[in-house]
Amino acid sequence: MERVVIALGGNALLQKGDQDTAEAAWRSARRAAEIVADIAAERYEVVVTHGNGPQVGRILLQNELASAVVSPMPLDVCGAESQGQIGYMLQTAMGDVFYERGMDRPVATVLTLTRVPVDDPAFQDPTKPIGPYYSEAEAERYRRERGYRVAPAPGDAGWRRVVPSPRPYSIVEAPVIRRLVADGVIVISAGGGGVPVVEEGPRLVGVEAVVDKDLCAAILAKDVEADGLLILTDVEGVYESFGTHDQRLLGRLTTEEGRRRLDAGEFGSGSMGPKIEAAVQFVEGGGKRAIIAALRDGARALAGHAGTLISL
Amino acid sequence: MERVVIALGGNALLQKGDQDTAEAAWRSARRAAEIVADIAAERYEVVVTHGNGPQVGRILLQNELASAVVSPMPLDVCGAESQGQIGYMLQTAMGDVFYERGMDRPVATVLTLTRVPVDDPAFQDPTKPIGPYYSEAEAERYRRERGYRVAPAPGDAGWRRVVPSPRPYSIVEAPVIRRLVADGVIVISAGGGGVPVVEEGPRLVGVEAVVDKDLCAAILAKDVEADGLLILTDVEGVYESFGTHDQRLLGRLTTEEGRRRLDAGEFGSGSMGPKIEAAVQFVEGGGKRAIIAALRDGARALAGHAGTLISL
Repeated sequence: MERVVIALGGNALLQKGDQDTAEAAWRSARRAAEIVADIAAERYEVVVTHGNGPQVGRILLQNELASAVVSPMPLDVCGAESQGQIGYMLQTAMGDVFYERGMDRPVATVLTLTRVPVDDPAFQDPTKPIGPYYSEAEAERYRRERGYRVAPAPGDAGWRRVVPSPRPYSIVEAPVIRRLVADGVIVISAGGGGVPVVEEGPRLVGVEAVVDKDLCAAILAKDVEADGLLILTDVEGVYESFGTHDQRLLGRLTTEEGRRRLDAGEFGSGSMGPKIEAAVQFVEGGGKRAIIAALRDGARALAGHAGTLISL
Repeated sequence: MERVVIALGGNALLQKGDQDTAEAAWRSARRAAEIVADIAAERYEVVVTHGNGPQVGRILLQNELASAVVSPMPLDVCGAESQGQIGYMLQTAMGDVFYERGMDRPVATVLTLTRVPVDDPAFQDPTKPIGPYYSEAEAERYRRERGYRVAPAPGDAGWRRVVPSPRPYSIVEAPVIRRLVADGVIVISAGGGGVPVVEEGPRLVGVEAVVDKDLCAAILAKDVEADGLLILTDVEGVYESFGTHDQRLLGRLTTEEGRRRLDAGEFGSGSMGPKIEAAVQFVEGGGKRAIIAALRDGARALAGHAGTLISL
């Protein structure tokens, strides 16, 4: 049976106009669950991973607003909370859809830690904005009192805390996830890129950082020996000249061409760049194929009928 | 290899005088991890479960205090978050201790749902207080606006939301947990009694309720086919005439005597009652033995040198 890691982007999970409520989150989980069920029905072994941007943002904001009464938890702990929150919703929604379709596939959420290099240069130069927006005075105060690194947000929107985004290199729970997926369990794992940990001698120590969800998905796919990596987002695939009149969906992209275009900065550093990098990295590392596609096209993309295929 | 479920009480995890900070939570996790390592070193297969009272209380309070800005999540979602938070800390602390002792035992946290009967009488009569204290006026407002059931707290401490505490009857993830523990993985699961779900036809629906952590541990122990259930708390075991000059630690308690004393109301409905009930229920249901002991005596209690043994 072919084994596939499905990476659900924050943009795929939450859609424009979605409200910030539990009901909206359940609807998003349901949408994602339908797609995972489509794929699982084709008899793939499936590991699901997902972003956590909006969810951990809400948790951080709650921590901030309640901080006079409840000591705030650090980012690594909040990330673990978000894995619990999103995993619960996704797995329950999947259970619903599987039952409705008469599918008998167990689902489990495994809390996941992701190893990052302790000497990653990102630790010297934190650039990933997280959590609430502050005034300049508040930002300065948190810098002093809590040791936050802060930076102005684009467009005069205020200031935000910035944290490092180091490159992941392995998934602590990979042996456990591999075991379960080989037994037919659909495993939800490495949510939000996993909780980043560094090795201090033999110890694993959680750090206040954010692992890119797509790069983490590539490492997860390698570590669980997946054949395929399916990155689902809110656009149809990789476009040439995206956003211009000449934009053209690429049905196929070799790793070589992907690297070349990445190096040329064609995809920007925002959303599509890391996805292509993750896809290229997975295939260069021995993965059979990676696909970038729209959430709704998930099963069709795996069958070769939608999205952009990245291969050697 | 003998298989044991270890239930860590909230009172065992957090000690008096512990502060409400991440640092204190890490110290508590470390204390618990040492005990689990003592037991794992004796070559038991281990499933760890734990309370979540203080942790989910903090999350609920954060949700409340931030509610003007961030829509609060319902109790079931907050419970899932607390499983992520505590599981992360426990598993990281265990990893540390295992490495320091040269033990090679993987640890994983599995998000857990617990089935409760949709017609449990507790749903008609919610009595379990959760979350922040309110003034009478606030309580009345939340009753009206959010449909909360509320009740005055003892000792004029204010009002609190009350939720049902239905009796658990099975663990949704038991097959997954069983598989992992049989492979030597130490599994953290069913934190805070698991997220309670009811069956609506084929669907599992999360409910705003609290499952007693010890009763859940008994079901978990049965469902994962454990030989033993070890309930760790902050007292040495089951006492006769507890709190009087004549108090006497019981080294052994038969299920029959346990039932009799429970029916006579000897242990109160607070903390020890549910522990004894869980122990008796596990052994009556076919479990070999249950032990109630102090956290620090964990390994000695399993070896028969501390705590109260509950058996046929």
